Amino acid sequence: MKYTILLLASFFLLSCHDSPKISKEKNPPKTPKFGIVIHGGAGVIKKENMTDSLQKAYEEKLEEAISVGHKILEDGGTALEAVQKTINVMENSPLFNSGKGAVLNADGIAELDASVMDGKTKNAGAISGVQHIKNPIDLAYKVMNESDHVMLSASGAEEFAKLHDIEFVENSYFITENRKKALESSKAKEQGVSANEFYLSNEKYGTVGCAALDQDGNLAAGTSTGGMTNKKFGRIGDSPIIGAGTYANNKTCAISATGHGEFFIRNVVAHDISAMMEYQGISLEQAAKRVIQQKLTDLGGTGGIVGIDHKGRVVMEFNTPGMFRATKNVKGETTIKMYKD
Amino acid sequence: MKYTILLLASFFLLSCHDSPKISKEKNPPKTPKFGIVIHGGAGVIKKENMTDSLQKAYEEKLEEAISVGHKILEDGGTALEAVQKTINVMENSPLFNSGKGAVLNADGIAELDASVMDGKTKNAGAISGVQHIKNPIDLAYKVMNESDHVMLSASGAEEFAKLHDIEFVENSYFITENRKKALESSKAKEQGVSANEFYLSNEKYGTVGCAALDQDGNLAAGTSTGGMTNKKFGRIGDSPIIGAGTYANNKTCAISATGHGEFFIRNVVAHDISAMMEYQGISLEQAAKRVIQQKLTDLGGTGGIVGIDHKGRVVMEFNTPGMFRATKNVKGETTIKMYKD
Repeated sequence: MKYTILLLASFFLLSCHDSPKISKEKNPPKTPKFGIVIHGGAGVIKKENMTDSLQKAYEEKLEEAISVGHKILEDGGTALEAVQKTINVMENSPLFNSGKGAVLNADGIAELDASVMDGKTKNAGAISGVQHIKNPIDLAYKVMNESDHVMLSASGAEEFAKLHDIEFVENSYFITENRKKALESSKAKEQGVSANEFYLSNEKYGTVGCAALDQDGNLAAGTSTGGMTNKKFGRIGDSPIIGAGTYANNKTCAISATGHGEFFIRNVVAHDISAMMEYQGISLEQAAKRVIQQKLTDLGGTGGIVGIDHKGRVVMEFNTPGMFRATKNVKGETTIKMYKD
Repeated sequence: MKYTILLLASFFLLSCHDSPKISKEKNPPKTPKFGIVIHGGAGVIKKENMTDSLQKAYEEKLEEAISVGHKILEDGGTALEAVQKTINVMENSPLFNSGKGAVLNADGIAELDASVMDGKTKNAGAISGVQHIKNPIDLAYKVMNESDHVMLSASGAEEFAKLHDIEFVENSYFITENRKKALESSKAKEQGVSANEFYLSNEKYGTVGCAALDQDGNLAAGTSTGGMTNKKFGRIGDSPIIGAGTYANNKTCAISATGHGEFFIRNVVAHDISAMMEYQGISLEQAAKRVIQQKLTDLGGTGGIVGIDHKGRVVMEFNTPGMFRATKNVKGETTIKMYKD
């Protein structure tokens, strides 16, 4: 009997040893809880391939993008709005593979995909293969908010856009000299001609994305991309696929992915991280590490994700040499990185 | 000390109480283990809406389809082959919303989606919005086996098909009188005119799918559909979305879904069932019930799934009045159903 009591007492102590801390923090100072994290693509991003001025340009644009979303959240705006406006900054910059500066398909045309998910309602919107939408993420929002559908594609998505106050541009608006060179290198390689390795090594990467938590406890995630250089046959990658490139659920986390899309689709990466948290009770950090460093890596996939959980903890996990990424916390402290550490 | 020994002994007994059974079955008879399950769409399928001859036609076609796949598995063929050939039978029948007999989009054109996943390699193939491919599932297989991509779309997917020995047909091949009437009813409803309720209630349903386990222990799943009657704007549903409409993983299960696709995408239904099994250690039956009867239903989504786990146990779960479905076990016993029970 004595042993039984001792055993019960031990269990009781083990399960309650945090109680005194809890009672001490009964009335903690009311710091608003929110957070935001972004990526501008993962890939062979190495210091030796980067000039100082290019590095500075990336840092400044990442800082600008994260600050736009952070300000919205600080002012009490929604995670959904923060994600959209943050992604707009990156879509409008030629530095990233989304909107202006998107990579070119085999026909030399920019063909854009995007998606968004609302963690509160689990509503979502996605578009694939549009060629004349200045900010593809804006169209994904319209699909989510103003249609019965989740995913619209190509010219059909553009028809829908015409009915919904979306800015159109010529395809030439998106095209930069760098992306033309990348396409040339990719085609040269296909034909067995020696090609520029710098462009080749990055042809699968550069997507932008954002995940945010607002002061009401709502999560959202969005992703926008030009896909893969020299893509053919109407290829759709993971960015517009809910569950693969984008996922948000207030119970767990919000995730945006970047990398070799085919592997992210096969691993259902964004949803898998959320499912591990929900069903195994592990942290976002643990789940992201397992999915990216084990499951994705085991299958031969490369890339990364950014994510934020319902408590505002952020993660930026990748298995490539680098990933453009930034986060800004409640105190306004910014972290901007591009290499492994 | 006595108590500790008693406790340890209990643990030992608890963990080992199955041992005698195991030793008895050291040399069990070698029954080959395989299985197959199919659906022909979920929706408002009620006895009062069905004539005897139509019911017989469905039963015969489901029997034919499941027997084709079952024979392949019985003869030692792969789950992948069984899934493909079984789906072909349903694609070639005007009874189902896939291949011949597919529903029509707002322009009166059949626009087809399909996907397949291999549970052994987690490789996958998907196509969306093709208009001239006789058997869309065959093209999904080609994408999986003969491209670096997972998902190809529309005319791009057809360009790829031209390079890969795929049968083309005129779009008129797919179109049936019933589907024309369904489109008329849907358009009438849009314009506030009274419409045929029978056609309306089924406009979102009719997809076909198959999940199978072969004698080598490999799982596969595939799905093929015409999508939603009167669909616009290049709408893509869940059928070609890996994780939503189709998923297979040798560790857990193979799933094919049917229903109101948007909700299946938002819930990442097929992968969610697999994730629950993997991370919570629950059965396929339990996981399918929770995802369809709780999570999907709570969000307002309607439809169902068929699935098979790595031990050959099948599930046919839906929250609609009916689902065309069939399974055939190792002994050759067939179950064919369409209503709730």
